[in-house]
Amino acid sequence: MDHLHQSFSVRFTYTVFFTSQLFKKANSLLSDFFRQQSTNDVQKKLLFVIDSGVIDAHPDLQSDISTYFAQHTDIVEFIPDLLIIPGGETAKNEPVFVEKIVDAVDKYGIDRHSYIVAIGGGSILDLVGYAAAISHRGIRHVRIPTTVLSQNDSGVGVKNGVNYRGKKNFLGTFVPPVAVFNDSAFLATLDDRDWRSGIAEAVKVALIKDASFFNWIEANAQALATRDSVAMDYLIHRCAQMHLDHISGGDPFEMGSSRPLDFGHWSAHKLEQLTNFELRHGEAVAIGIAMDSLYSHQLGWLTEPDTNRILATLRTLGFSLYQPMLDANDSTGVLKGLAEFREHLGGQLTIMLLEAIGKGVEVHEMNPDLIRQAIATLKAQEQQAQLV
Amino acid sequence: MDHLHQSFSVRFTYTVFFTSQLFKKANSLLSDFFRQQSTNDVQKKLLFVIDSGVIDAHPDLQSDISTYFAQHTDIVEFIPDLLIIPGGETAKNEPVFVEKIVDAVDKYGIDRHSYIVAIGGGSILDLVGYAAAISHRGIRHVRIPTTVLSQNDSGVGVKNGVNYRGKKNFLGTFVPPVAVFNDSAFLATLDDRDWRSGIAEAVKVALIKDASFFNWIEANAQALATRDSVAMDYLIHRCAQMHLDHISGGDPFEMGSSRPLDFGHWSAHKLEQLTNFELRHGEAVAIGIAMDSLYSHQLGWLTEPDTNRILATLRTLGFSLYQPMLDANDSTGVLKGLAEFREHLGGQLTIMLLEAIGKGVEVHEMNPDLIRQAIATLKAQEQQAQLV
Repeated sequence: MDHLHQSFSVRFTYTVFFTSQLFKKANSLLSDFFRQQSTNDVQKKLLFVIDSGVIDAHPDLQSDISTYFAQHTDIVEFIPDLLIIPGGETAKNEPVFVEKIVDAVDKYGIDRHSYIVAIGGGSILDLVGYAAAISHRGIRHVRIPTTVLSQNDSGVGVKNGVNYRGKKNFLGTFVPPVAVFNDSAFLATLDDRDWRSGIAEAVKVALIKDASFFNWIEANAQALATRDSVAMDYLIHRCAQMHLDHISGGDPFEMGSSRPLDFGHWSAHKLEQLTNFELRHGEAVAIGIAMDSLYSHQLGWLTEPDTNRILATLRTLGFSLYQPMLDANDSTGVLKGLAEFREHLGGQLTIMLLEAIGKGVEVHEMNPDLIRQAIATLKAQEQQAQLV
Repeated sequence: MDHLHQSFSVRFTYTVFFTSQLFKKANSLLSDFFRQQSTNDVQKKLLFVIDSGVIDAHPDLQSDISTYFAQHTDIVEFIPDLLIIPGGETAKNEPVFVEKIVDAVDKYGIDRHSYIVAIGGGSILDLVGYAAAISHRGIRHVRIPTTVLSQNDSGVGVKNGVNYRGKKNFLGTFVPPVAVFNDSAFLATLDDRDWRSGIAEAVKVALIKDASFFNWIEANAQALATRDSVAMDYLIHRCAQMHLDHISGGDPFEMGSSRPLDFGHWSAHKLEQLTNFELRHGEAVAIGIAMDSLYSHQLGWLTEPDTNRILATLRTLGFSLYQPMLDANDSTGVLKGLAEFREHLGGQLTIMLLEAIGKGVEVHEMNPDLIRQAIATLKAQEQQAQLV
């Protein structure tokens, strides 16, 4: 009579679809999905939340969506009031947007078997996933990522979250979407910075897990930089697959302490914050990758030629590998990100470094002097490039 | 290349311990638990959130806790600033309390491998579980339920949540605790209403799942009403076990639409709200059970003798089975709770009724006239009882 033991498993499944022009009448992928999900007992509702940047780039999107679902009133009850929310970090910084979505859930009676569909970049997906996760203990959510970064990485994963008092992802949950629709047509209207930014996550995953993928990126860096859509489609598909495999093969809700896909991220999170999110996430990750590659080389792990290949590939992709905030005073600068990163991960500090291209290895401490040395190297290379 | 399929399972385990005087020096249950959980890599922190009502009833509790962990600084880092929060529905109604906990997580650097320990009634546990679930995508939480209701039902389950704009549990998640400690010493200081209130959930689960347990409650109703602690210990243990079995044997995160443990609850939720939570949850559930038992009898399912046994047992336990708000105008009254209940569950309306004692059966609609008839019967019985 002194204790009872509880134990159960919960199964999560979802599909990541690849398509183009999802809301064109002739494209039945989305309506087929909802038809398969429908049950006889009740009409399911569909609430859309859309990134204002996507609306600006695709002025017909709202009417396309309305027209699409006007054909399918037998499958779902489409809520015609589309919520438009400013994209980017603003969406995650302002608590009013979580409230706006939760209020719509209340107003339109969106229940746990209805859907909230998010269209936008990673920030909007994170915000909507979070608002859906906490409403009625979890409303189903569908993600339609519109950026490279969200299509190949965050959008196909299981995390959501918002910032709290400026702290990135301080509030959030692990809840998978019920489906992800990667529509390549959205990528065409991205500006060059957003197009490029998402490639950093592919470089990251290739460097720690798959040398052949890095070789491919290196060989196609110029094509990717000049917006070759075939190369980009391949990169997104392969990177999304690796991301899904990592989740299902590991610790999906990160109950342990390792997060081996996080190469280059400890400094990137801090750099984004230090630049008031002027730096895109992928731009900060590119710098973080460069820093931690140099650091790995300084430890004697990564060879000099391989280190140079990494830096050169990042530069060919168009990334700048130095940012003045890297030089900020230690107590306010990037080094402070180490402690914050540990706290956010929970438990012991775990940082991924490179033993070789394609082979990440975890360490549990970093030497501040070596970090400063890596920063100095990036700064010197940047100055040299400007002199040439 | 048109889609990728993702699929994984996540395993959740936790233990419900039964003890008395958890924070007395000689009781090593809690320190043993944390010792087993400890890992070499990092000191784990312990943040306590305590129901102010529990502090009032146990003036030594705060110093007992501090003294207890002063012995165990090798195992955990105890945060001496205990958060005290008013118990009852207030805790769930005011967003400021979620904020207070999240701010403490930030201030004390509580990471995902540290613990938030909640001591209190169901509302405090729901609040703390929610704040823990959304902080850093889920900080481990330990529950120390102090009421009958939370020890035998909600406290051992996987739900948490707070109210939003007055709507009960509108925000919440499904996240199991890492451990539950049921300390019977807390029950001794409960007032009679709280002692009794928790018994309603045991009656509920017995009626829909286990006739022999109902027979036991019927036979021990007088002892339970007069605060026999041996009878109460048995009731809590058996009810907690049934609750755990229901979760692990079914749909732990309620992704489907059935919730067969919810007998008597559709009206109870609404009654609590209509009485501004003057009525305790268990008191409302007792009325809900009486109503839906009468309704089941009116359908010709439950026999008259069995219906009377249920009503008599509830009255012997000390419950009043009528509340004037039952008679409120339909559009503002209890019947409105049917629609709200469906919306909160999601999908089709599913209501549990009784085919017999120990045998629940689900229906998907209810007849308002029969509901009114059940209310009229309860009102007449109440008036008759007052005349006698």
